Amino acid sequence: MPSDKLTQAQLDHILTTDAPFSAHYGFVVEVFDIGTARIRLPYDTRHTRPGGTISGPAMFALADFGMYVAVMGAIGPVALAVTTNMTIDFLRKPAERDLIADVSLIKLGKRLAVGRVEIRAEGEDDICAHVTGTYSIPPR
Amino acid sequence: MPSDKLTQAQLDHILTTDAPFSAHYGFVVEVFDIGTARIRLPYDTRHTRPGGTISGPAMFALADFGMYVAVMGAIGPVALAVTTNMTIDFLRKPAERDLIADVSLIKLGKRLAVGRVEIRAEGEDDICAHVTGTYSIPPR
Amino acid sequence: MPSDKLTQAQLDHILTTDAPFSAHYGFVVEVFDIGTARIRLPYDTRHTRPGGTISGPAMFALADFGMYVAVMGAIGPVALAVTTNMTIDFLRKPAERDLIADVSLIKLGKRLAVGRVEIRAEGEDDICAHVTGTYSIPPR
Amino acid sequence: MPSDKLTQAQLDHILTTDAPFSAHYGFVVEVFDIGTARIRLPYDTRHTRPGGTISGPAMFALADFGMYVAVMGAIGPVALAVTTNMTIDFLRKPAERDLIADVSLIKLGKRLAVGRVEIRAEGEDDICAHVTGTYSIPPR
Repeated sequence: MPSDKLTQAQLDHILTTDAPFSAHYGFVVEVFDIGTARIRLPYDTRHTRPGGTISGPAMFALADFGMYVAVMGAIGPVALAVTTNMTIDFLRKPAERDLIADVSLIKLGKRLAVGRVEIRAEGEDDICAHVTGTYSIPPR
Repeated sequence: MPSDKLTQAQLDHILTTDAPFSAHYGFVVEVFDIGTARIRLPYDTRHTRPGGTISGPAMFALADFGMYVAVMGAIGPVALAVTTNMTIDFLRKPAERDLIADVSLIKLGKRLAVGRVEIRAEGEDDICAHVTGTYSIPPR
Repeated sequence: MPSDKLTQAQLDHILTTDAPFSAHYGFVVEVFDIGTARIRLPYDTRHTRPGGTISGPAMFALADFGMYVAVMGAIGPVALAVTTNMTIDFLRKPAERDLIADVSLIKLGKRLAVGRVEIRAEGEDDICAHVTGTYSIPPR
Repeated sequence: MPSDKLTQAQLDHILTTDAPFSAHYGFVVEVFDIGTARIRLPYDTRHTRPGGTISGPAMFALADFGMYVAVMGAIGPVALAVTTNMTIDFLRKPAERDLIADVSLIKLGKRLAVGRVEIRAEGEDDICAHVTGTYSIPPR
């Protein structure tokens, strides 16, 4: 499952160091490879709004984290890769269960990587939130 | 400071009920009025990445929360107003201090409200993160 | 090819009336159905920048037009459906040939439709421009 | 009015060479300076939809062109500066008159410039369309 650019140990380091907010959310990296990732956000009422909807910021954090993992999977554990832009469309209220984010890079350039994320409630076909985002890659 | 559409008590209710994640971040509503708001995110290393940068998800949460307050200030405490779309540009690393979000609605229609948020480190002129977002307003 | 919501004659009417700019670009509707469309922008140096790149506004027009066709295919020829928001990522310079836009709606609600568009140079796999956009649907 | 980075003659060259679509729209550069610009789109029924609304693609072209002028005003006539991302919110139908775009850069880095554009019908206060966009600046 690890890509040849990123080992499991390096990923674990990222999880605990570069993205400290991931512990708050309990993100689980289910798959990562060269430019793709699948991340799980376990259902937890700490992240819901009244009515059981997962909050927008939790979905944003999930997408941002997933894109970071996909970029690291493609270029290796580069310090200082930073998000420059993200657009999120909230499409429908997810069911009250874990959320799954499927990330794929649609561009991997020398300076910029652009990714797309589809977030769904586990087991559902409909996309709950759709995200595109850009990461700036430092000179190597 | 309260608008004629939203009392301080109603706002406090929003803070604790509709936006439970606000407690995690410790948001402080410094100003709110008809379609505008100023929100503070107190500096806390729980929300930083290595190097002291406030994380992207924390800035997103700040903007989303601020826009919610501005919409409530304009239309009153309407249940179910939901974010449909947000775009965030991360412009520069903020200084290691509180962040201030200045929110203003640039459209207030019957069905949609659109807002703009400028986030700065306290006391600085440069914008650290710029956000535009849309809220869907339920039929009344 | 026409959906049961939209006949070819209705589509032709849209082409010439609602989207007068489509004549300037010479858009060709290759496929349209319930919530999907494929549109061609014939290569024409009128729409290129130095070096042969199709201009950004031409790609934006292609995506906007394609999304309009997909919405009409889903809900029928509704007057006054209007774009409320579009985000476009320009990923790479397309080859000097026709552009193909593949549109699919990822949400079709009562009030809002959200679509996603992938633009490629004909015969290529890589996406040149990626678009998400929202249409507001008038009450019926 | 010209900035010290960009002469009027250089700007005229940009108008006719780098942005050939500007002739189609008849853009007039009313002001340009270091990181700011004001551009006029003369009212012309060629660019309207039924009901007299200026089309979305025309407003997008206006914003994209204005941001290009503002970037050139800040860094000089650099070949190959390209748009990487734009988000446009359509807020209200403009009156049937010239449109004015006010552009300001909110970030000017070595690699990326980010701008914000407010489009209004001439003489009106309300913003008709709001745009944020990013330009990639080639290494110098």
